[in-house]
Amino acid sequence: MLEDLKEAVLRANLRLVSSGLVILTWGNASQISEDGSFVVIKPSGVSYSEMRAEDMVVTDLDGNVVEGRLCPSSDLPTHLELYRSFPGIGGVVHTHSRYATSFAQSERGIPCYGTTHADTFYGEVPCTRPLSSLETLSEYERNTGRVIAETFRTRGIDYTEVPAVLVCKHGPFTWGSSADKAVENAIILEEVACMALAAKELNAEVAPAPQYLVDKHYLRKHGKNAYYGQK
Amino acid sequence: MLEDLKEAVLRANLRLVSSGLVILTWGNASQISEDGSFVVIKPSGVSYSEMRAEDMVVTDLDGNVVEGRLCPSSDLPTHLELYRSFPGIGGVVHTHSRYATSFAQSERGIPCYGTTHADTFYGEVPCTRPLSSLETLSEYERNTGRVIAETFRTRGIDYTEVPAVLVCKHGPFTWGSSADKAVENAIILEEVACMALAAKELNAEVAPAPQYLVDKHYLRKHGKNAYYGQK
Amino acid sequence: MLEDLKEAVLRANLRLVSSGLVILTWGNASQISEDGSFVVIKPSGVSYSEMRAEDMVVTDLDGNVVEGRLCPSSDLPTHLELYRSFPGIGGVVHTHSRYATSFAQSERGIPCYGTTHADTFYGEVPCTRPLSSLETLSEYERNTGRVIAETFRTRGIDYTEVPAVLVCKHGPFTWGSSADKAVENAIILEEVACMALAAKELNAEVAPAPQYLVDKHYLRKHGKNAYYGQK
Amino acid sequence: MLEDLKEAVLRANLRLVSSGLVILTWGNASQISEDGSFVVIKPSGVSYSEMRAEDMVVTDLDGNVVEGRLCPSSDLPTHLELYRSFPGIGGVVHTHSRYATSFAQSERGIPCYGTTHADTFYGEVPCTRPLSSLETLSEYERNTGRVIAETFRTRGIDYTEVPAVLVCKHGPFTWGSSADKAVENAIILEEVACMALAAKELNAEVAPAPQYLVDKHYLRKHGKNAYYGQK
Repeated sequence: MLEDLKEAVLRANLRLVSSGLVILTWGNASQISEDGSFVVIKPSGVSYSEMRAEDMVVTDLDGNVVEGRLCPSSDLPTHLELYRSFPGIGGVVHTHSRYATSFAQSERGIPCYGTTHADTFYGEVPCTRPLSSLETLSEYERNTGRVIAETFRTRGIDYTEVPAVLVCKHGPFTWGSSADKAVENAIILEEVACMALAAKELNAEVAPAPQYLVDKHYLRKHGKNAYYGQK
Repeated sequence: MLEDLKEAVLRANLRLVSSGLVILTWGNASQISEDGSFVVIKPSGVSYSEMRAEDMVVTDLDGNVVEGRLCPSSDLPTHLELYRSFPGIGGVVHTHSRYATSFAQSERGIPCYGTTHADTFYGEVPCTRPLSSLETLSEYERNTGRVIAETFRTRGIDYTEVPAVLVCKHGPFTWGSSADKAVENAIILEEVACMALAAKELNAEVAPAPQYLVDKHYLRKHGKNAYYGQK
Repeated sequence: MLEDLKEAVLRANLRLVSSGLVILTWGNASQISEDGSFVVIKPSGVSYSEMRAEDMVVTDLDGNVVEGRLCPSSDLPTHLELYRSFPGIGGVVHTHSRYATSFAQSERGIPCYGTTHADTFYGEVPCTRPLSSLETLSEYERNTGRVIAETFRTRGIDYTEVPAVLVCKHGPFTWGSSADKAVENAIILEEVACMALAAKELNAEVAPAPQYLVDKHYLRKHGKNAYYGQK
Repeated sequence: MLEDLKEAVLRANLRLVSSGLVILTWGNASQISEDGSFVVIKPSGVSYSEMRAEDMVVTDLDGNVVEGRLCPSSDLPTHLELYRSFPGIGGVVHTHSRYATSFAQSERGIPCYGTTHADTFYGEVPCTRPLSSLETLSEYERNTGRVIAETFRTRGIDYTEVPAVLVCKHGPFTWGSSADKAVENAIILEEVACMALAAKELNAEVAPAPQYLVDKHYLRKHGKNAYYGQK
């Protein structure tokens, strides 16, 4: 079942490697089936060079494996929580990419310093609060998803407009309409994180881009009046 | 029509990718026809790996598409404004390359700290003033070109001697005698931006190169007494 | 003798190059035979592109060459000291990778700033004290191993839980159950060092990750309750 | 004539590109003939991808072209001055590699912060004084060589022990027993420059390595008691 979806999820995971976001067996990408019943995710700790579409793991939304011989990524519960909390998203990605992870470790969100950021992320990419000791001890991966959802809810950020987050002391998660789109957002996040660090080093007082510029660039690419790309 | 020009513009765009200046569908290069009647530019939001010469878009200087099935780059009006304001240039390039963009986001020009810079850019590469809210709301891309031209005019910088600019909070534009030459200037700009950041980190008080050294290196490569390269 | 081991050691050494940790003839990886009698190590100063399995040098634990036409890596005595001091380890790696070496030169350990670090290293990766003049003049390479062992002993760090060290003013050594595993730890160390530098630049007051988060991530991958990877 | 030497010089120049030290037509490597009569150097401003051994230019020690259809590198007079001032060297290299050039632009030498540096450079790699206006106006390239030689003479640095220099506001020159060896020193210089910047960022008060450690590492690889590599 879901052979096309497995292929798409495999390709998305391999693109994480070819884009330089992921080394060793790090990182994971998943996609939800069109009817919202199943999630396909990378197996845990398997070498990317040997991974095949049939190694992808199919689970239901409670995390029960319904197809696949391998154990799913240990971050599966975070992915599931995001699919439940963020209706309509199609894919989720987690990486330890260098600069986005550095921001997470520094407990700082990534301010929107310019149009490269605003083209994809409509404002600062937030860094979550730290998980508590209790949240870490039990249901850690699921709680990671809950704290991400809480971050967007309590700060009034629209997850469709800012499809990325930094988990405090951990690293980035991104999402999108598909696993491939979530990978693309992870690529952009890393680029934007690198530039934000350099901008801060050049000018310790660097200010975020003005709201009208953020509006212009975000809406050039998103929403009904978008005019970037082909019709 | 203009088949050679389309080939040249395609190659220039692909070189942006192979040089590491551009990822995804970012960036764009254009070239103006020898008689100054037409501009050939990359289509908007099309994957580089699938792009062919016949996908290049031909427009007149008012931006009307005269050939091509695809929509032109959304930055076309900036390119056109530069062709109108900077007589004699043959090609224009826009990227979001990491270090040049970081300088733009930090709202700083790139000082001429050494000979690598002076070999190509005769003095500081300026950062424009921010566009106003009104300039951003309407005719944004054209106004971007206008503010670039204003920057060179009001600061008395010769656009043939400094073929690059940083648009405040946005990123670099470069130009040259052809699209390929503009790409080359974009490559050098990124290199020079990276070195300028490192030089500042090594020495917070780093001074620009003395004028006589800038003169020597710039004139070694440009003008009637140039002696770099083959005759 | 030990043909499989020579192959494994060759592959580990070549992986140091393909992973970008080693240039020129720098770096070395070794592995101890299963019975603990022999160590196989890279020859000294030989080009990686020409190195073959039969060029690997077999020595006993006193460093006497028992097979091989070439001189062993000059760092052999450090490897041997680590095999003697850290019972149970199977492989040792030394590199001059950029960021780990920069930490060593700055005389700073790498604090555990996040989960990327904690997944592999259970706490700060220590930087040794400087070797004294006497320790450097005579038996330098062996004393390097002794000072590494002293660092773990006197600071109460378990070498199985933190399989890496920075030798003051010198560079990193890593170890693991095999040469290949030691290479993997060297790759992770470099990644973690790069992120730690960036995190400090983003936030000069960045704090280590809380102990419960370090526990969670380290134990997710190590020990009897580990649940990362396949069973 | 000198066909082998032309091949060697071509290969050295191409290695500058494959090692990432040189882009576009930047950089140049030369080698002197064994009898000290001729210098073979890269032509000026020729694309690396099209360069062939027969394009190398042969000159005498006064810079007169004795063979070759192309103009020699404009930096030839610096190379010649170094061959005259530093008896016994066989090859010279000039690059604009990112980190070494950044040090030159910041007007700082590269302190010997650790063993990676000391393995090749016996102490700080010096940055020259700035060339004066007069020295720049006339015989600029030759004066560059003179100021390099002056730097080693007046500061009492042995050019065989520190085969590299940073020309103030310009960039690095390296030398060695051959063009290839000079390339190797340029590779190491760039690596060492990158690490020195990072070490300073980690610890603003970072101290040079103690003299006994510098002695140990330099003499492990150089001189009659060297024991690195094969006999």
